[in-house]
Amino acid sequence: MAETRRPPTAADVARLAGVSRATVSYVLSGRRSGGSRVRDETRQRILEAVRALDYVPDQSARALRRRSTERVCLVLPRLGVPYFDVLAKELQEAVAGHGYTLVITVSDVVDARSAVVAQLRRRLADGVVIVAGARAANEALAGLVDLGIAVVLVADEAARDGIDVVRGDVTEACRGGVEYLVSRGHRRIAFVGEFPPHAARHSRFDGYRAALEAGGLPLDRRLVVAGASSRAEAYRSATRVLESPDRPSAVFAATDIAAVSAIWAARDLGLRVPDDVAVIGVGNIDEDLVMNPPLTSVGPSSVGSAEIAELLIGRMAGEAPAAGRTRLQPWELIRRGSA
Amino acid sequence: MAETRRPPTAADVARLAGVSRATVSYVLSGRRSGGSRVRDETRQRILEAVRALDYVPDQSARALRRRSTERVCLVLPRLGVPYFDVLAKELQEAVAGHGYTLVITVSDVVDARSAVVAQLRRRLADGVVIVAGARAANEALAGLVDLGIAVVLVADEAARDGIDVVRGDVTEACRGGVEYLVSRGHRRIAFVGEFPPHAARHSRFDGYRAALEAGGLPLDRRLVVAGASSRAEAYRSATRVLESPDRPSAVFAATDIAAVSAIWAARDLGLRVPDDVAVIGVGNIDEDLVMNPPLTSVGPSSVGSAEIAELLIGRMAGEAPAAGRTRLQPWELIRRGSA
Repeated sequence: MAETRRPPTAADVARLAGVSRATVSYVLSGRRSGGSRVRDETRQRILEAVRALDYVPDQSARALRRRSTERVCLVLPRLGVPYFDVLAKELQEAVAGHGYTLVITVSDVVDARSAVVAQLRRRLADGVVIVAGARAANEALAGLVDLGIAVVLVADEAARDGIDVVRGDVTEACRGGVEYLVSRGHRRIAFVGEFPPHAARHSRFDGYRAALEAGGLPLDRRLVVAGASSRAEAYRSATRVLESPDRPSAVFAATDIAAVSAIWAARDLGLRVPDDVAVIGVGNIDEDLVMNPPLTSVGPSSVGSAEIAELLIGRMAGEAPAAGRTRLQPWELIRRGSA
Repeated sequence: MAETRRPPTAADVARLAGVSRATVSYVLSGRRSGGSRVRDETRQRILEAVRALDYVPDQSARALRRRSTERVCLVLPRLGVPYFDVLAKELQEAVAGHGYTLVITVSDVVDARSAVVAQLRRRLADGVVIVAGARAANEALAGLVDLGIAVVLVADEAARDGIDVVRGDVTEACRGGVEYLVSRGHRRIAFVGEFPPHAARHSRFDGYRAALEAGGLPLDRRLVVAGASSRAEAYRSATRVLESPDRPSAVFAATDIAAVSAIWAARDLGLRVPDDVAVIGVGNIDEDLVMNPPLTSVGPSSVGSAEIAELLIGRMAGEAPAAGRTRLQPWELIRRGSA
């Protein structure tokens, strides 16, 4: 049987030219707006590789690049998280101004075999915003970039070729929250949160640990309670740690929802907040203000949707550099009544 | 200027044959599975009209009919409603089993000019589930049916040609909830809820009113508090009515979120639930169980996603009758501790 030569791909061109696939995509798409962001020499090398390999760009990928769907996809790891609701609402408004409609998909895994990637290949959207918690495989993301799909990650990760990242200084902010508790004299501070099975690291827990260390306090594993995937579970987790004979004087909850549940749990146990137990959450959500006392929370100063939309729309318009950009979203400790 | 004759449409065929547009779509799509659901005589009349008008079916509509996107779209009026979160999750699982991916769009208006309809025309999905609260214009829905898009409404509406409806007996169930309060001796029962500007009617309020009437109680407008679009607003609404000198002994809240906020408000005013004030919500959401006391709620016995998925998938497969089907979703009063 004669060997059939497989047609060359953009990856082959990239390999031969010694550049990234994103740079190949960028040069071959003929984008020139915003000044040449690829050096002439590099551009020359890519074009030579194209000729040497007799590479023909994938027509379906080229069609995709021509803003063909007028849709933007927001990939959320799950629903029911207040921050996501606000992000979706604001993002929808921001992209609508540019003629795009927002569609939401829910997936906590974004890899080559996932339904969302298959759908993005089937022209679900021209651009995608993937929110942390959705574990995104590098290979799948690079594949989307190759298809001409603009990608923005909202995650505690590094930017990479063709992919922009918006991230908060979550670890630092959480550390600040726990250090505030330490500065108020708390020595036994519980952590109530979710420990997702496939998270590379847990920035909120890292911040908690760093603050204890800085304060010379031991990390007491009995004060670390895993389980806050729902209000009910967080309530049970908080009750468990607050019922213990050696009860903590403060709770640092990894989300505001968990913190609200902790306040419920404390009140149901007859404990006063913040006098008997101080509570800090993470997220700075609207519900914080309804609580009695209002919830002290570590969170983003804003949802960041304007920034996310700006990155995505620029990239969809072909006005973004091949290299990914990083935007740091400021987080802060908002002191209210609960701690 | 010579008059140009506009090409005949499916609506013209329907008019001439004296049948609905959905029946025309159905017959012309050549669907025959599940037995002939259109009488031979009707079929004959449609084919004669096609010939008389020299009608050519729209090719893009025909292409759409061939399950081209493998996506199902769920249109929600807004995010942040626990019932919607569960519905989305279950629906995603149900359609995934048939090779479809769920995408969610948020829109409270589904008319010919809305982004979601424009997107459905642009091959966003093969089928769409539109949830009550999203006001859906009949004309826009008929347009989707003409495009071969399967439509299921989850709303207190009547089924119509090509459109299935899943609805709960909401008014009756709410009436039952309030009648239960009346049977426990309550005479001053407040209603806390949202009155959306463009709702044709308010089935939950209708149930409340019907129960008062049946119990021979007057409708006291001072006990009807509008404003429950968020937890914060519902908390303020409940506080307002519970602070009044002539305070009600029970609150019927139009949603469980509003009921939870009412319990918070009561507790913050030093009132015991249910002894000083009984509270009933609507929705039967998970959070009810975390409350102290657990929330008594009127709600669907199940989310109904299996039924919705079954209707939609059958219609997408061309196995549904031209006439819309109606499924009644049972609702019930679930008595817990708060009333």
